[in-house]
Amino acid sequence: MIEKSKKNNTIQYKHGVYIAQGSSAVGPKEGAGPIGKSFDKVYTTIHGGEETWENFECKLQLDAVTTVMKKNMMTADDFGFILGGDLLNQIMITNFTAKELEIPYLGLYNACATMAEAMVIGGMLIDGAYADNLLVVASSHNATSERQYRNPTELGAQRPQTAQWTVTGAGAMILSTTPSDIKITAATIGKVRDFGVKDPNQMGAAMAPAVFSTIKDHFKNTNTSVCDYDLILSGDLGYHGHKILLALFQGEGFEVGAQIQDSGIWIYHSKQDVHSGGSGAGCSAAVWASYLLSEIRKGKYKKILLAGSGALLSPTSLQQGNSIPAICHVVSLINQEVGSVL
Amino acid sequence: MIEKSKKNNTIQYKHGVYIAQGSSAVGPKEGAGPIGKSFDKVYTTIHGGEETWENFECKLQLDAVTTVMKKNMMTADDFGFILGGDLLNQIMITNFTAKELEIPYLGLYNACATMAEAMVIGGMLIDGAYADNLLVVASSHNATSERQYRNPTELGAQRPQTAQWTVTGAGAMILSTTPSDIKITAATIGKVRDFGVKDPNQMGAAMAPAVFSTIKDHFKNTNTSVCDYDLILSGDLGYHGHKILLALFQGEGFEVGAQIQDSGIWIYHSKQDVHSGGSGAGCSAAVWASYLLSEIRKGKYKKILLAGSGALLSPTSLQQGNSIPAICHVVSLINQEVGSVL
Repeated sequence: MIEKSKKNNTIQYKHGVYIAQGSSAVGPKEGAGPIGKSFDKVYTTIHGGEETWENFECKLQLDAVTTVMKKNMMTADDFGFILGGDLLNQIMITNFTAKELEIPYLGLYNACATMAEAMVIGGMLIDGAYADNLLVVASSHNATSERQYRNPTELGAQRPQTAQWTVTGAGAMILSTTPSDIKITAATIGKVRDFGVKDPNQMGAAMAPAVFSTIKDHFKNTNTSVCDYDLILSGDLGYHGHKILLALFQGEGFEVGAQIQDSGIWIYHSKQDVHSGGSGAGCSAAVWASYLLSEIRKGKYKKILLAGSGALLSPTSLQQGNSIPAICHVVSLINQEVGSVL
Repeated sequence: MIEKSKKNNTIQYKHGVYIAQGSSAVGPKEGAGPIGKSFDKVYTTIHGGEETWENFECKLQLDAVTTVMKKNMMTADDFGFILGGDLLNQIMITNFTAKELEIPYLGLYNACATMAEAMVIGGMLIDGAYADNLLVVASSHNATSERQYRNPTELGAQRPQTAQWTVTGAGAMILSTTPSDIKITAATIGKVRDFGVKDPNQMGAAMAPAVFSTIKDHFKNTNTSVCDYDLILSGDLGYHGHKILLALFQGEGFEVGAQIQDSGIWIYHSKQDVHSGGSGAGCSAAVWASYLLSEIRKGKYKKILLAGSGALLSPTSLQQGNSIPAICHVVSLINQEVGSVL
């Protein structure tokens, strides 16, 4: 008989997991947004000179990965593993990145929570000293996603105001055993939550309860609360989902303030006609790997909670009458230069 | 500057990772095969009384998971995490299993190598004592897969002799910190390999070089060779892929014998009109979680190498002219009752 024991879905990294560096590549709309200057590479078209949108998404991932390697004067040979995923069926983009780099590969799929998932599992590989350095990567492309998940572009379907705009972009980070100023201290693996949302243009509403659930688990398991963080940054709830998250916090008596932010709101100007903000696995990946890391290094944030949120939207399942399950994984960071060790 | 170091894609579990129990549920063709009696549940139709094939695949996964829990007198509350995946877009089946069970979830996609991938990552969670018990699960369904990857069933397309038959089945295992007779000692994470195969009815040929590559890495990193194992069991190369694997071994001077076997060959009689044998994420999952564990416990095998092989076939990518990349992850087991500790 095997032993039963108390469960705890939070991983407390014991030996030190550090983010050495991050990098990103995005499309024109993202480059024109409020944090556009923080991205390492900005393309001026949504096909980036490639024959297919999918090939361009491949290019974005490779750009993000090769740039982050160059920043550290490293090559593919210096990495033990690559972990990541994207929104396309069979995570085809990431499979090709892993093929190109010839680095041992773990393919992941938790929709827009994939970068967070890669950081959680990559953190374990680093913490266990199974690798000194590894890569985490995620991407999305507006046109590859819309075609697959919603409507063919040619249809010119009108989007409701609750719809989010799938980010064209990729982000990659190096996780390392070598101490740096940004340390991953803990991570919480979330449960799938499903509150019956059946509208693929309501991703924020589908994801917000999952985000709230995993953040609460993280608070409980690490004995912290909202006030213990300078920034609680969700993956991509967008305006509507963010409002729901704030309401959920308030509904259970949490004091919420300006520290609760959303990557999908950060990435676009409201005047960019993106309706409820950004989304997509490339949204959190690009924002976190570029803008966020640079703001942390500037000393703006000391204790950060990242909540990667994913709507596990399957067109087949939706057509068969099912609702959209969602998930969220949480990653806790500290800026060692200015913060105290949690 | 972060440190560069020698890489090693093998994880040596330090504190003990054990397979407590396994369970499976399959369709009629699998039940009629040579190892049919070893499966815990055999359905008599390929829709299992459900309205959609996808719903039946969900049922198969839930059957496998709930049966393995019952065998250990455990409930979902006793598990820290669930890790797994399937072949459907957005791994929709596993998302619903995780939703139903409300266990913290990591969604994985490495095609038919998904069960091996879940064992590799689950092994780290157990080895790091982040959970005392967790579930790994994978599945496939012949009809859900054929429709998505190849031809609609209604087309009645003829299959060439190299085609494999996607298994209708699911397998689940409990990984635990509690010592049992079957111990996972090490695992090797593979690289993506692509030898230019563009025919979705040639999965064995696409996968064999990936299997050979990761097994060689494992040999090198653990200082072992073919003769150190009683069984080297690939996920699902089928007859054609298995022949290619043997030729690759022989080509590099390895002595090969009857210890090199394939799960896709084990699962069906050659007279069952399955052509090159079984495949699918549910093939290795069901065979390993039932027949293999029982044979190990009978003392037939002492030192086992499992090579989960996956063809990362994307219909979109294929239509755009790309070839089919493949991957393989290797997991090393010992039977503690009869074997010496590797």
